[in-house]
Amino acid sequence: MAETVEPLFPRPLLAPEAARGSAFRFGASEPLTLDCGRTLAPFTIAYMAYGKLNAARSNTILVCHALSGDQFASGMHPVTSRPGWWETMVGPGKPIDTNRYFVLCPNVIGGCMGTTGPAEIDPATGKPYALDFPVVTVRDMVRAQAMLLDALGIEKVLSVTGGSMGGMQALQWVASYPERIVSAMPIATSARHTAQNIAFHEVGRRAIMADADWRGGNYLLDGVQPSQGLAVARMIGHITYLSEAALARKFGRALQDRDALSFGFGPDFQVESYLQHQGSTFVNRFDANSYLYITRAMDYFDLAAQYGGDLSAAFAGARTRFLCLSFTSDWLFPTAENRLIADAAAAAGTEVAFREIASDRGHDAFLLDEPELFAAVRAFLDSVAAERGIV
Amino acid sequence: MAETVEPLFPRPLLAPEAARGSAFRFGASEPLTLDCGRTLAPFTIAYMAYGKLNAARSNTILVCHALSGDQFASGMHPVTSRPGWWETMVGPGKPIDTNRYFVLCPNVIGGCMGTTGPAEIDPATGKPYALDFPVVTVRDMVRAQAMLLDALGIEKVLSVTGGSMGGMQALQWVASYPERIVSAMPIATSARHTAQNIAFHEVGRRAIMADADWRGGNYLLDGVQPSQGLAVARMIGHITYLSEAALARKFGRALQDRDALSFGFGPDFQVESYLQHQGSTFVNRFDANSYLYITRAMDYFDLAAQYGGDLSAAFAGARTRFLCLSFTSDWLFPTAENRLIADAAAAAGTEVAFREIASDRGHDAFLLDEPELFAAVRAFLDSVAAERGIV
Repeated sequence: MAETVEPLFPRPLLAPEAARGSAFRFGASEPLTLDCGRTLAPFTIAYMAYGKLNAARSNTILVCHALSGDQFASGMHPVTSRPGWWETMVGPGKPIDTNRYFVLCPNVIGGCMGTTGPAEIDPATGKPYALDFPVVTVRDMVRAQAMLLDALGIEKVLSVTGGSMGGMQALQWVASYPERIVSAMPIATSARHTAQNIAFHEVGRRAIMADADWRGGNYLLDGVQPSQGLAVARMIGHITYLSEAALARKFGRALQDRDALSFGFGPDFQVESYLQHQGSTFVNRFDANSYLYITRAMDYFDLAAQYGGDLSAAFAGARTRFLCLSFTSDWLFPTAENRLIADAAAAAGTEVAFREIASDRGHDAFLLDEPELFAAVRAFLDSVAAERGIV
Repeated sequence: MAETVEPLFPRPLLAPEAARGSAFRFGASEPLTLDCGRTLAPFTIAYMAYGKLNAARSNTILVCHALSGDQFASGMHPVTSRPGWWETMVGPGKPIDTNRYFVLCPNVIGGCMGTTGPAEIDPATGKPYALDFPVVTVRDMVRAQAMLLDALGIEKVLSVTGGSMGGMQALQWVASYPERIVSAMPIATSARHTAQNIAFHEVGRRAIMADADWRGGNYLLDGVQPSQGLAVARMIGHITYLSEAALARKFGRALQDRDALSFGFGPDFQVESYLQHQGSTFVNRFDANSYLYITRAMDYFDLAAQYGGDLSAAFAGARTRFLCLSFTSDWLFPTAENRLIADAAAAAGTEVAFREIASDRGHDAFLLDEPELFAAVRAFLDSVAAERGIV
């Protein structure tokens, strides 16, 4: 039987008492079946809910987060004290309008903000799972979310959305539970992780594992963490989230707090200082082993492979309406990858709209102030809601 | 007075007795003046020479190597026992034909294959320079090469060429010594390192410095080396040298020696295995501190900044003929950056040919079997040689 509990944080001292979100703990008799063949029990899903579920329970929008995201899509993040990762998109009067919709954002399985992941205590040993945690997949994440929705008594989702890995979850939702998904907005994503993206992730993982403080994954036992390795992994990732044009515009070759080159190895250039900041702040809110597990889940994602290599078969029988969105300067999840999704969904007979949004801000554009993105999401949701008689 | 000496290797046990190349050692009275304001003396330049200098001393082609290259452009590399990095381009009957031209390829200042760099003994302390080595620039590399040419009695260079950082050196040669350079073939390069490229380099440097065995740069004293950090840096670099298309074609999502995903963190995918191999073999032939210094030199490179921000002023007065070459899929040194060079050289009144070569192999294309590249280089050199009456 599911019960509501306080979410667990890997570093509880960093999280203020308030705004910890909600959590469901599934007991020993409610295991999560995993693609690797193992089961996970008990387990917790931490989530945030915004807005109100209507009487017909028909106004749920499921927001799925990306690699470095969490359940705090909107409002103040309890660890960073900064706005949630989709503050521009989710909230009262925002494109995903919490005055109108009931927005659910769960932390993924394998994560580190309260949902069970490698930093949690393994009940079998009384120690953190570390690398004994099973390697999870995007399908496992979605399977766990379906259990959460069951527990919350939500049968149908008006729209499932997310960017990057969030988009992968949206696609998996349609494939795994087509009857539950009225509409889907996969953004800046792919139906399979490409070789280049696997390569960048692999380097990030090697950087973490190369840190002497990683200690075979058992760093929590020793009260240390592989901060430098995780920071390097984050820096690599961060470069790939931006476009060359955005980096040139934001930083170019501008120097940081100096008039001339230092002829040293400190951060002479603003872009170096910026990256170092990104790396060092990330380690305060993210668990290194979670980074390994979540990147692995993305690498493993290949939706067509689940359906005999035919992506359109993944959407067979679905009556889901799709809005597929990409950004011109996103070289990590380029338009071509997003178009493959739209084409496959159309081939499966679903109603699909596809839009490539002009932006020079790279993959990160899905998190930023992009009026064309907002307008497209708002109009699509208006249309879907109208179809379903949602005021 | 300059004297010929055996080159020094940071890991002499790895270098076979044969094929060590040549070296000039400049004495205490022949300092190299550096951009940082310091001088370096004594210092050694290791180099390889291929072909024969003609009686008129007019057939020299200066080949400048890239970040991870060295003087072994052609023939067997003494450490790796594999072909030199430009084996396809340099040799008897090759586009840079050593039956016809005298090819000189020096190891750069800051390098680790015999030219003085951070792994060499600092005569002032009797210990390896490590981070006491001055931060050098591409202009310093070229200044040292000019001293080598003086020492060898070579006044004029028929053509200076190189890809990536080699192309930066070629541009600097024209700017610093226009009267000595008959022609230049900068390939897949830029007149200034972009923010994105600085960012990738910075992450590589942080990976090296994060390795516990880096020890503030003093690893050689302790008989260790930051192999894991250097391997991560190399892996990052290697991804950027390839195109997404090349990675997709070569590897895609193919698995390595297995039929199914392992649900672990070993190299499931071929692209992971390939990258790990690239990283682990690199550390056997490259010094980690050299990697810091040479990447820094590239980051600092901004030729226009030496001339009041006007790139064409860098080539003012030069009568050098240019052949500028880029590759369609090179996203590290894209065509637009190479075109800026050609435009500036043309604005300075030089004779410039520019060609973008269609290739899906990314930045690395300049090292690979690219018939259009070979034909362009051969034809250009034929034309330059004919003008100068070289048979």
